[in-house]
Amino acid sequence: MRTAFKASEMVRKATKAAPPLPPMAGVKFGTLFAPYMMCVEYNTTEGWGKPEIRDFGPLSLMPQSGSLHYALQCFEGMKAYHTADGIRLFRPDMNVARLNSSHKRLAFPTVDEKEWVECLKEFVLANRTWIPAEEQHSLYLRPTTIATNHNLMVGPSDRVLHYIIASPVGPYYPTGFKPVRLVAENKARRAFPGGTGAYKLGANYAGPIMHQVEYTKKNFQQILWLAPDNTVDEVGAMNFMMLWKNEQGKRELITAPLDGTILPGVTRNSILQLARDMKEIDVVSEKRVHIDAIMKGLREGRVEELFGCGTAAIVTAVNFLQFGEEGLAVPCPETSVTRGFMEKLVNIQYGRTQGHPWSVKIADTA
Amino acid sequence: MRTAFKASEMVRKATKAAPPLPPMAGVKFGTLFAPYMMCVEYNTTEGWGKPEIRDFGPLSLMPQSGSLHYALQCFEGMKAYHTADGIRLFRPDMNVARLNSSHKRLAFPTVDEKEWVECLKEFVLANRTWIPAEEQHSLYLRPTTIATNHNLMVGPSDRVLHYIIASPVGPYYPTGFKPVRLVAENKARRAFPGGTGAYKLGANYAGPIMHQVEYTKKNFQQILWLAPDNTVDEVGAMNFMMLWKNEQGKRELITAPLDGTILPGVTRNSILQLARDMKEIDVVSEKRVHIDAIMKGLREGRVEELFGCGTAAIVTAVNFLQFGEEGLAVPCPETSVTRGFMEKLVNIQYGRTQGHPWSVKIADTA
Repeated sequence: MRTAFKASEMVRKATKAAPPLPPMAGVKFGTLFAPYMMCVEYNTTEGWGKPEIRDFGPLSLMPQSGSLHYALQCFEGMKAYHTADGIRLFRPDMNVARLNSSHKRLAFPTVDEKEWVECLKEFVLANRTWIPAEEQHSLYLRPTTIATNHNLMVGPSDRVLHYIIASPVGPYYPTGFKPVRLVAENKARRAFPGGTGAYKLGANYAGPIMHQVEYTKKNFQQILWLAPDNTVDEVGAMNFMMLWKNEQGKRELITAPLDGTILPGVTRNSILQLARDMKEIDVVSEKRVHIDAIMKGLREGRVEELFGCGTAAIVTAVNFLQFGEEGLAVPCPETSVTRGFMEKLVNIQYGRTQGHPWSVKIADTA
Repeated sequence: MRTAFKASEMVRKATKAAPPLPPMAGVKFGTLFAPYMMCVEYNTTEGWGKPEIRDFGPLSLMPQSGSLHYALQCFEGMKAYHTADGIRLFRPDMNVARLNSSHKRLAFPTVDEKEWVECLKEFVLANRTWIPAEEQHSLYLRPTTIATNHNLMVGPSDRVLHYIIASPVGPYYPTGFKPVRLVAENKARRAFPGGTGAYKLGANYAGPIMHQVEYTKKNFQQILWLAPDNTVDEVGAMNFMMLWKNEQGKRELITAPLDGTILPGVTRNSILQLARDMKEIDVVSEKRVHIDAIMKGLREGRVEELFGCGTAAIVTAVNFLQFGEEGLAVPCPETSVTRGFMEKLVNIQYGRTQGHPWSVKIADTA
């Protein structure tokens, strides 16, 4: 049984020439797809097959597969960048480690992490003409793994398909920073201890969509998910961060700890590391913060910024927070720490910060 | 925009003649599929299309669809019965009501319940030669709805596919009642308040599978899911019931209330109704029961039976319960109330209980 697949085995099955990348103006996130996809299949008898580069197109999937009945599915979100000195990835080691942790959570077979990153590079290079060159544009990469078993049994799948698709994207907020109105939700939950909130499983995303639809009607763009004790979990599908002057008068950046309900975001991890090196921030805390403390901090003018962070938008500023009957404006300063993180990350991602270990160059010309 | 589909519009697209039903001996649950499936598509521009009967086979699904990334999927489980006086369904009104409640939870469009049942009848009749005639056999029906959108946006899907597939099945425990060993789990959880446990979504099934794999290695066939307060939620993918002599000396049938984390099972509902008419049972309670109370009841010899109930197995008896360090034998009497429920339900399902309103005859000959 083959316990790993390798980049050197890549089978080239694509038949169509890549069409030119269409103009990116007005293209919405995740609606345009690069011409090629990567697929590799697994079954419990033979293990992993050989990875293939194929034309992008529909999957043929048995209607009884566990991916469609029991949410046996997980994914990753990452980006490839067209930069002045070639094509770059950002911390792919973090994504493949999380992918494997999701696989284990679903009783899927794991991948060889080094070989997986090499396969990803091959996949990106196959689609290289579809990495948009404009400032703050990128090729969004969506590695996905689904159960493809042929029976209805509720149990571990004996067949799995891992695939990668890619979508050229512009900046998430094309007209510049667009702060969002936030509503804190303390009845519906995104995740719970003993559940799957710490893994990037499809199962975490189904529940919140109904609430998102309801709150959108009330002019809130994102939901601040609270735990039963009213401490903050996450915001929408992003990690949540607050910069404030804490009760001890220190300037503190605070986010929820990875205690089992929080997605271990790559952007979250990167911002925490950047923040620990910044003189402007006294304390960087991974701890639970109570919504009452945030509201009190806002009333007392101690909250400097609230923001979400994730791969798609990098950082998303907040300008309003509603909790129960009370709605409070949130500062969104022109020159903000949030924007500072964004700039630092973008400079690393696009290779403008020389030799940074988070940026992995995979080709010398774009 | 068409807000409903109708049975009278059914398009016949099947091309293959139904092969004969293979012998059922040794066929495992959910591994053999009837020759035809029903499909009906929805999009936000046109609404529902026309339902179609097609050859059973793979779906063509875009790799970016929300069904594969955000668990936008739900299903139902029900059965069609080959009986002495024709073909029968069991309480299809309950299943379609629950299907619509799942649809709403996922921001999917609802179906017209009356028309849906008529479509289901057409579907079953198309597969009528695949309803096994043997005692306790049936055609398991799996209505399923999935998002089929063409983008990666985390939000309500603008395309949906509803389909029904069917699998001929024998009795879940072919060698007669096969009691299971149960382990009570108080760290991992199946569901949580504010989540999706009360809806039949794929998202509820992904998390438990890893734990199921782990406990199977330790010779436990099912997990008794506890809430954070150590009261019982469900058992495996079934509702949980206990028959005991309660602290007041009354013979009580007890199951968890539909308080938001419990799946509203059709078998659960049916057993509760049957139990309320039985002289042998003093009290029928839908209330939370603490695991400590169950263990104490077992130690004191007051627990008469523990069982799971659901469409697939109808009832599943328990002969052992482990909680923490303590493992206790559970009585499994030869002539049991559990078996009594099973017999009563089977007699209704197969039309042997004359004129029962739960049994819906859809053809006069099988």
